[in-house]
Formats: sequence, structure tokens, C-alpha cells
Amino acid sequence: MENDLNCLTASAAAAAIRAGETSSEMLVSACIARINDRESTVHAWVNFNAENALTQARECDAALARGDDVGPLHGVPVGLKDIIDTADLPTESGSRLFAGRRPAQDSACAALLRAAGAVILGKTVTTEFALTQARGTTNPHDPSRTPGGSSSGSAAAVADFMVQLAVGSQTGGSVIRPASFCGIYGYKPTYGSISRRGVLIISRYLDHLGLYSRSLEDLAIMGDALMQRDAGDFDMRFHPERQLSEITAEPEATEAPRLAYVKGPAWDHAEDHMPAVFDAYVAGLGGIIQEVELGGIFDQALDAQATIMNASLWANLGELCEQHPEEIEDETKERVIAGRDIRAADFIHATELADSLVRALDGLFENYDALVTAAAPGEAPTGLDYTGNAAFQRIWTMTGLPTLTLPLLQGPNGMPIGVQVIGPKGRDEELFRAARWLDALAE
Amino acid sequence: MENDLNCLTASAAAAAIRAGETSSEMLVSACIARINDRESTVHAWVNFNAENALTQARECDAALARGDDVGPLHGVPVGLKDIIDTADLPTESGSRLFAGRRPAQDSACAALLRAAGAVILGKTVTTEFALTQARGTTNPHDPSRTPGGSSSGSAAAVADFMVQLAVGSQTGGSVIRPASFCGIYGYKPTYGSISRRGVLIISRYLDHLGLYSRSLEDLAIMGDALMQRDAGDFDMRFHPERQLSEITAEPEATEAPRLAYVKGPAWDHAEDHMPAVFDAYVAGLGGIIQEVELGGIFDQALDAQATIMNASLWANLGELCEQHPEEIEDETKERVIAGRDIRAADFIHATELADSLVRALDGLFENYDALVTAAAPGEAPTGLDYTGNAAFQRIWTMTGLPTLTLPLLQGPNGMPIGVQVIGPKGRDEELFRAARWLDALAE
Repeated sequence: MENDLNCLTASAAAAAIRAGETSSEMLVSACIARINDRESTVHAWVNFNAENALTQARECDAALARGDDVGPLHGVPVGLKDIIDTADLPTESGSRLFAGRRPAQDSACAALLRAAGAVILGKTVTTEFALTQARGTTNPHDPSRTPGGSSSGSAAAVADFMVQLAVGSQTGGSVIRPASFCGIYGYKPTYGSISRRGVLIISRYLDHLGLYSRSLEDLAIMGDALMQRDAGDFDMRFHPERQLSEITAEPEATEAPRLAYVKGPAWDHAEDHMPAVFDAYVAGLGGIIQEVELGGIFDQALDAQATIMNASLWANLGELCEQHPEEIEDETKERVIAGRDIRAADFIHATELADSLVRALDGLFENYDALVTAAAPGEAPTGLDYTGNAAFQRIWTMTGLPTLTLPLLQGPNGMPIGVQVIGPKGRDEELFRAARWLDALAE
Repeated sequence: MENDLNCLTASAAAAAIRAGETSSEMLVSACIARINDRESTVHAWVNFNAENALTQARECDAALARGDDVGPLHGVPVGLKDIIDTADLPTESGSRLFAGRRPAQDSACAALLRAAGAVILGKTVTTEFALTQARGTTNPHDPSRTPGGSSSGSAAAVADFMVQLAVGSQTGGSVIRPASFCGIYGYKPTYGSISRRGVLIISRYLDHLGLYSRSLEDLAIMGDALMQRDAGDFDMRFHPERQLSEITAEPEATEAPRLAYVKGPAWDHAEDHMPAVFDAYVAGLGGIIQEVELGGIFDQALDAQATIMNASLWANLGELCEQHPEEIEDETKERVIAGRDIRAADFIHATELADSLVRALDGLFENYDALVTAAAPGEAPTGLDYTGNAAFQRIWTMTGLPTLTLPLLQGPNGMPIGVQVIGPKGRDEELFRAARWLDALAE
């Protein structure tokens, strides 16, 4: 199977297509075959139309045959979390209420991927409204375990070799945690660097789009395609100074990054085996990493993130839950109603705490190039209802720092555990430089 | 009196100092003499130290004598609203609670003005916490009338020829309204273009620093000095692409701007004579201006601005009011407590309405270079307790669009009335281009 086209990385597949060694149609056909073979076990896709995907692939091949200029993802398939609007496939946000909803136009994200040459293979399963109600996706490494959520289908489809790339989203921990559970690369860029126009918003203060792939280079290529300014998202603010794919294409770094191993309040949620797993990993890195405690105001971070998130959920979904109670799962309604009575001043104070955390972290980055911590509390839990604990992502979501996870470790049951690397806000290229060093070291 | 040094504009004074025709010490002495003469009537200053100002002036003169490089405001005095921290003078925010408070360091604003060569003449009277409780400043045109607020002393001091330039702040309508009432030039730049580090924050979502002068050119020079990026203010986002003083120094424009005369919900608050005053002004402009109605979502704007402001006041000042009730005026406490029970979702919806208004206005600027409306509901009201109605500023404060007022009109009692000009968000240079054309036309 490892020699099958669907198992190539995106960059290898794109190079093979450009070189005429394969075609987009052949690549997409291999992915479709894999989906047909495995979907009844993995349940990664909610709207998937083989003929629509093959039509796009054939158009890519025709463009190449004509000698058209082609983008860096030309002919490569991508899965999109089903909260991301597409003009050619329904977008249902994991909700019965939106069953069959057909957006009038592509989201900014879908349009940018198409402009880079990608084939939109289909829409991947999301929990209801990108919250906690799971929709049956399984972990490709063990179908009795969750793939994580809310970007369940995006992570599982990439991990199961059904597609090279996928887009997810993170408001609490929904990009990085599924990547860790599924053993793939996941990347949440700096807040405000990928447009959310045409994406379901559950908290504009916290919502990030994020990326999945099976190599660091692929994250960089997809990131470059998506990190484009767009007046349609009022919170767009950051843009990397350099192309991320320039960083991953550089000759090997001669100088090791200066790394901080951070713990802080999330570690109260870690499984018993995790300190030993991480301490051993850190010890193997030697003198380039120092342990740094995140205390003080960091102890308030998880509560503040919950205040911002819950207030936003009620603001964005409260009316929907009140008007259509029978169409929305109880678990979702309970999450949404939790924000109804939050006071504006508490919300404002929580956003100010987030800024104070950013200032404190800015100070830390004067001495370190990147931070390292766990990407999740442990291995993917057994059972499909509970998608896992977001504590290890929430500080980085509320502060908007760029973070990615590398699939470098394993837990006691042989399930993957990710190493989370966090970079300075707005300087994603530095995150990639440190991550590349760690990734190469593990090879 | 018109030939006195204190009556020069800032640009004329700076040029005379650079040319050796006068000195900073002579200029500052003339301002001090004017203050000594008039302060018992105007009450514009709260902390004013003649010796401290003269020391700075002599240092400016010495630097010039040494041949040092000098900034565009070298030797020119400036007044700062007493919510703006200065290391050499107390900053009391109009509050007994902060009587004698000595900040450890200059605000970003004070430091930038000093870097441009300005002499900090003193701190000007603000209402308590830049809210509504007035502190006795009178209108230089009629001491029985308010100068407006909350930047009462800054506007009155410039209008009364006590100082060339002053800085105020606007959360509702506190820069533009006093300028209109006092018959001077006032400018509130695009939100996020002047750092508020070291300034009392009552609503980070709405607070803007703003500028006063007696010429448009002076606003541009001071704006250029202050609109500098600063990581210390998390909401800094905009920076004009060109120096504003390049715009005001350009040869006369040959092409008239395309202007929209906008009314909208603020006009429900206008005095009876105002439609006639403005209709006559607009008729005089001829075909370059068209009336445009601001309806639809603009009808919700004033309520939404109040929601954002009141929620912020409680978040920022609620604890102070609860802990020190006897030190804070009842009127202030009543304003602050009004925000206590606002729900987070209502606050979030109000901020989203603000964004929708920006989008709607962005659309309007596709057809117009600038908008024109009244700067206040009418002439300055009689009495010193009530500083006037902010309805004509609140939409531009909540949307963060750049706005300035030109002292071009008079009301039935001979009191000044400003023409407010509003530019596209983040493009203050276009605002100045239109304002310059209107200002020149009126000469």
C-alpha cells in the first residue's frame, strides 16, 4: 500500500503530476479507491462526490497538457471540514438543521485552494457546529478510539491515506488534538492569518482554520496558499514575512533552536504516563531545551478561554438553539446555553487576560525560538462519543500563537502522541524553522 | 493680540524658531502670559508648571544653538488632556482619587511629542475619567457656555490662544464636539493609529486619542508625529500610507473631491436651526456633493455604541466605583453602573454591528472620497454642567473611521459650528485631501 499514489505526500504528488509521471486523475482515483475501501470503518466523509472530484482532476490534467501556469498544489486532492463553504458540495456543519444546505459561493479558503490548483475531494465529518457532539468517525489506528474533534473527518482522512491534505478549524483544541490522536502533522497558524469568510463562525475571537498533512513541507505549502489577506474577514491581521515553504526547503539548519519545554495548567489534565513520555523526549534533545514553568496569570487562562468561548457560542448559536431545539442535539444545546448569562465585563476581562498572556509569552520569546509541550493529554481515548480534552490547545488558541504538532511519539498502547511546537505570534516562519529541526532530528 | 506669538499656528511658530526669528522661550513665555491673563475665566489647565515649561523651552533653544537635528514641532508648546501620563507632571484623570498621581514614565503620546521637539506646556482639564462630570472649564467664545467635553481644557486652551496644539481623547464624542463648540480644528484619526500606552483606558474598543489646533496643516504635522506603531497598544492596526503633512503641503488640488452629505440617526438630535445652516452650506458647494441617507442598520448604531461603551465602563471602572464610592461623583458612578448587567452576547452583537457599519461605509467610499455632516447638534449649550450631546460623533467612534472638524460655520448666536468631514477607514490621507479642499474653499 505504501507505494500507492494515495500514500504520497502532497509535495511529492504535485511534483509527480508536474513531471508527467502521473496524473491528477490517477491520484484522485487512488484516493477514491481508498475511501471506497475504508470509509465504512473510518466514516471520515460527509459529502463526497467521486464524479465531481474526477471532473476537477481531469480539468487539472487538461490545464497541464495545455501548458497553463499551474499552482503549487496542482492536481492534489484536499478535504475540507464541513463548516467551510463550497459552491459545488453541500456544507452542513454537522447539523440536521443545515442538511443539504448549498452555499451560493466558495469560502475564501476553498477559493484559495482551487487557485493553488487543489482538487476539492469532498467535505469531512465535523462534530455538530464544530463543538463536541461526535458524528461516528473512528481513529484510523484503532476503530474503537476517537480520532479527536471537532475536525474529526479531516484528521482521520489524512491519517488513513484517503487524501493528502485537509483543512480543519480550532476554537478550543480542534486542529491540534485530532492530529496528535491520529498521528499526523497539524498546524494552527497565528490568529488572523487565514480568512474565515464563508466559514461557520462560533467565536470570531477564537476561531482559526488549521491544516493537516503527512509532512511538514506539505503544511508549509498549504499554509502559503491560504495565508492571504482578505478584507472579508475583519480579524485578519498577520501575515508571515516569508513563505513557509522557503523555510522547509532551506538546506539543513546548522544551528539548533533555543527551546523551552513548557508545562503550565494544561498538565493537570495529562494522563499518568505523559510526564515520563515527554521528560524522556526532552532529555533526548539535550542542552538546547530548558524547562520553563508557566505560572502566575497562566493559571487563569483556561477559565478565561472558556468565558470567551461560551459567551461567543451563545452570541452566535443561542437564537438557533432557541428556535430549533428539536433539530439540535442536547449536548450541543447545553454547551451553547452555558454562555447565556455571562456578563459583558467578564468577557472583556477574559479578552484582556488573553492580551496579558500574549505579552508574557512575547517576553519568553526573547530568550527562546519556540516552545515545546504535549499536543494532547495522552493517546486517543477509547470510545467514539467523547472526542477528548482540549486543555493542551486552549492557551494557544486564546492567545492566537502559531502552533503545530509533529507525530513523533507513542503512548503505552502504541497510539500516536504529538509533540506540540509553539512559535512567536505573527512569526510563523520561526515556528517552522524550529519544527523542521525537531522533525529532522527524529528521522 | 493677533500679532502675539501665542496666536501663531504651530507650523508658523516652528518655522520662526528654526529661522531664529523667535525662540521657544519667547513663544512659551507668550503662552504663559496668556494663561496668566485668562485662566481665571477659562479654567483650561489642571496641572500647569510655568518653570517646567520654560526649562523645556530653553533646552529646545540650546539644542538649536548647538545645531542639533530638530523635529517638526521643535520648541512648540502642547497641552495634554489629563488622562495622558507624563513623567514630569501629575496625571489625575479629573478624579479626586488620583489627585497628585505621578506616573513613573511618559505615555507613548507624550514621548512622541517630545521626540518631535514639542514642549509639554501642561495638563488640561478633563471631565472625571473622561466621562460627563464637568470640571468648570468655560467656552472661550462665551464663558456662560460649555466648551464641550470630555476634552474640555484641551479644546478651550487652543481656542483661547493659550497653546498652539493639544491632545484630547474620544470614546463617544469628546474630541470633535469640543472642537466644534470652541471653533477650532479637531481630528480623530482612524482607530488604532495612535498608541494609547500610558493613557487612561475607559473602553479599548472605542478610545481614540485626538488632536486640536488652529489650522489643518497643524493637525497634519501633529498627526504625523503621533501615528507611529507601538507594540504597547494591542489595538494598533492602521498607519497612513503617506505623511499627512505631505497632503497639506501639496500645491492646490485641481480636482474637487466627490462628497456625500450624510444625515442618519444623529440628526434626530440636531437643534432646529441646524438643517438650514447645513443645507445652505451644502448648497454652496454645488455639484460636488450629494445627499446620502444612512438608514437600515445605521438606525441601530447609537444603541450599539452605548452597549459597547457602557459595558466597557463597568469593566474598567466598576471596581473603582465600588471600592471608593465617596471619592467619585454620583453622575460618574451612575454612568459606570449602567453597564454592570449588560450580557456578553449583547456586547458581542454590538461589536459585530460596528463591523457591519464599517462594511456599509466601505461601500459608500467606493463612490465618494469623503462624507460631510455636522460636527455637533448645534452651538455650545449654555451652562457649564452639561458638556453637550455626542450623537454626531458616536457612529464614527464605534466604526473607527477618521474624522475631523473644520471651524467654518456659525449658529444664530454667533457661536461656532464645525463641518465634520469623515474619510475611509485607514486612509486618513484621503480625509485630509478632502478637508483641505473644503478648508481652502472657505478662505
